Amino acid sequence: MSLDQAAESLGDLADRLTDGALVTDRDVIDAYAFDRALFCPAGQALGLVRARSVDDVVAVMRFATEHRIPVVTQGARTGLSGGANAVDGGLLLNVAGLDAILEIDPVDRTCRVEPGVINADLKAALNTEGLAYPPDPGSVAISTIGGNVATNAGGMCCVKYGVTKDYVRGLTVVLADGTVTRLGHQTAKGVAGLDLTSLFVGSEGILGVIVEITLGLTPALPPPLTGVGIFPDAESAGRTVADFMAAGLQPSMLELIDAATMAMINDFGDFGLPDDAGALLLVQSDAPPAEAEAVLARFQSVAEANGATEVVVSDDPDDSDMLVAARRAVAPAMEQYANAHGGGELVDDVCVPRSRLGEFFARLREIDDRYDIAVATAGHAGDGNMHPSVLFDARDEDQIAQAQAAFAEIMALGLELGGTITGEHGVGYLKREWLGRELDQGAQRLQAGIKDTLDPLGILNPGKVLPGTV
Amino acid sequence: MSLDQAAESLGDLADRLTDGALVTDRDVIDAYAFDRALFCPAGQALGLVRARSVDDVVAVMRFATEHRIPVVTQGARTGLSGGANAVDGGLLLNVAGLDAILEIDPVDRTCRVEPGVINADLKAALNTEGLAYPPDPGSVAISTIGGNVATNAGGMCCVKYGVTKDYVRGLTVVLADGTVTRLGHQTAKGVAGLDLTSLFVGSEGILGVIVEITLGLTPALPPPLTGVGIFPDAESAGRTVADFMAAGLQPSMLELIDAATMAMINDFGDFGLPDDAGALLLVQSDAPPAEAEAVLARFQSVAEANGATEVVVSDDPDDSDMLVAARRAVAPAMEQYANAHGGGELVDDVCVPRSRLGEFFARLREIDDRYDIAVATAGHAGDGNMHPSVLFDARDEDQIAQAQAAFAEIMALGLELGGTITGEHGVGYLKREWLGRELDQGAQRLQAGIKDTLDPLGILNPGKVLPGTV
Repeated sequence: MSLDQAAESLGDLADRLTDGALVTDRDVIDAYAFDRALFCPAGQALGLVRARSVDDVVAVMRFATEHRIPVVTQGARTGLSGGANAVDGGLLLNVAGLDAILEIDPVDRTCRVEPGVINADLKAALNTEGLAYPPDPGSVAISTIGGNVATNAGGMCCVKYGVTKDYVRGLTVVLADGTVTRLGHQTAKGVAGLDLTSLFVGSEGILGVIVEITLGLTPALPPPLTGVGIFPDAESAGRTVADFMAAGLQPSMLELIDAATMAMINDFGDFGLPDDAGALLLVQSDAPPAEAEAVLARFQSVAEANGATEVVVSDDPDDSDMLVAARRAVAPAMEQYANAHGGGELVDDVCVPRSRLGEFFARLREIDDRYDIAVATAGHAGDGNMHPSVLFDARDEDQIAQAQAAFAEIMALGLELGGTITGEHGVGYLKREWLGRELDQGAQRLQAGIKDTLDPLGILNPGKVLPGTV
Repeated sequence: MSLDQAAESLGDLADRLTDGALVTDRDVIDAYAFDRALFCPAGQALGLVRARSVDDVVAVMRFATEHRIPVVTQGARTGLSGGANAVDGGLLLNVAGLDAILEIDPVDRTCRVEPGVINADLKAALNTEGLAYPPDPGSVAISTIGGNVATNAGGMCCVKYGVTKDYVRGLTVVLADGTVTRLGHQTAKGVAGLDLTSLFVGSEGILGVIVEITLGLTPALPPPLTGVGIFPDAESAGRTVADFMAAGLQPSMLELIDAATMAMINDFGDFGLPDDAGALLLVQSDAPPAEAEAVLARFQSVAEANGATEVVVSDDPDDSDMLVAARRAVAPAMEQYANAHGGGELVDDVCVPRSRLGEFFARLREIDDRYDIAVATAGHAGDGNMHPSVLFDARDEDQIAQAQAAFAEIMALGLELGGTITGEHGVGYLKREWLGRELDQGAQRLQAGIKDTLDPLGILNPGKVLPGTV
């Protein structure tokens, strides 16, 4: 079928959907064509479906299978890898409107939600029940649980509480041909058959459409004790992380902000950060008070042994809130900086063994020195998951080329140190060729084979994630 | 190729293996043909390979692919579902001899092990480094990490520390055609591509052969405070579990033993258990002392509100060790009972939502009453994962029929209450037809499709796990 024929047949699709779900207005379609990734092209979609029900999703997938039309599922489009970008001649299937919290069960410590529920909204609803869903990506206030599941999102909680995958017990998914199936289990444990739930977590829309999620929960998280360490450079902060974790301590948060990022935050707002520090570590323990004090005391001694110039611990919730707000301000502060310096910002997401963090920062400095761009880094140091951002003038071809080269060098560095090209943002379009460098031939063959099994027509988010696909 | 031809060609296989790895002695082969499951047939294997190296595993899989010979991978053969049982004309590939602990890294809190390492041996090695690998199946002293991964084993730790899957970061696997591939990541986080690691965890040998495992670890677990509650019946104990967990408390262990099981334990040895109790809950908290005391005080009040006749809390490690020893004695005590009563013992493994535990025990009592067999139950009550054992005279056809009917009713009950047919033992041969009752059509199609993709010749543990396979 030609694209013209497909466009004509959209009328048929509209008849199968909730009234108003199908949008064919070009301006609206184009406004939904991108997530927040840079350097990721978006194709021209045939139409946009804002699903109002699971039946809408089923109708879209049946239609797409009948007409062999690509489908790109998307939620809040806060992704950083281009995974939600439109493809030519395809449909955008936006499930942000499926945003009901269907059930919260305090006895079984579970909830069932639709994919469009905003992470922070779920956290708020659970809090009133004395429950918590820990995963907290930087986008917590704007990203959806469905998107979090599709990318296996992480955040600042992971060093103690793990990632999205650790909380997903079951999924209802719509397969490529429109079949609705339930995967996983509602119970705390379950090993009946291959673990297809985990296969869908982090699958970035290439295997099916997630329409319902059962999450395991924890009791509400206790209030943390917070500490901050100031270091002469990122290397010494990185070594502190390795030594601290090696000592058997368990923080509930361990974040790093480097000097360049701190300067951007200080330009963005007053969060009480120093203006002459080489790097900062933000550490929390939510253990009971005496234990938390012991954890932070140990942090202080390890930090000082690694050259920290100052370590401050506070049990004042206001201090803690201010420091966490500073960490959460990294994204808008960098955006403000980028906007004032030519608009270019490429956020990387490598994860390295914590034991290699000192080396990582030393090598990152060499990369920064070698190119005429700026690298500013913050991230989840306790997990070794760092977000070096390459900042450049996006109006300048040479700057763009340098930024892309530096970005590639950072991924190569991550792999060289025994790490991965992506700790939590996903592959999407941005890193799909790099996936071919991380995975060996056998693993690539398995990935492609499984994709082909679940999506024999190749209509689910084609051209994303897997290398060498169109 | 006929079986005779295959047997002849084993000489060719021997040439490709470490000297002595191939065993063709019929008595030895037959001695390796079973795991510990009941009512699961074992076929007549062509030969047994006791692999001494990854190269041996590769050679077996290449040979098996060339000759289309089934391969059943096995470790310590402590499984309870027949997953490691021989199939006719196939090879038994025993990897218990691949038992090296390759690396322990306290900074990154990881270890790399071969599949044949015994769980308890790994725990002991980690303990000297101040580290822990929490998963602790009942078979902890005799089962291998590879087998634990292949079944996604659980244990008494799960209520706080999760299951095997939560600790597996990366795997090296040998695929059906002999290709060696590395899956997952060494780092704390990683989302590069589909999560094939989790797909292999719990795959019971039907997708490939696991030859190396990278595990994430925790700091050494703190000493627990232990409590025990005595109840008039299992229903009130079950309701206590639901109420206690609903109160937002987090035990590190919450186990149940019913009256029938307690009687068997008391016949087996003196662990200080009462001889007239209807059910017992064993609870631990490994939080810091003040917090642990608060958790157990709350347990006491919830238990008493549900009719507990006695609740005792002790911080004496000897008391704690004795109670845990009593719980661990369930398996040998039941075996002793069974041996004295006709030898029949079918261990079930249903997992239900904790909120349904009270109902579960009431219904279980009805099943027990309706059949002329005995049902004795212990299990991981905090997770709703119960092990009702059906005890019967295996020399009596009518008893066998009744036992099988009762066993089936227990699984049906688990499904009816929103649970699963297996929380941690796996499907193997024993429950493969029941998998078809738990999974919907779409999920069954996906399971079969993925199996077919990874094992196009159908040589990996055929006839196991998936319903309707031969």
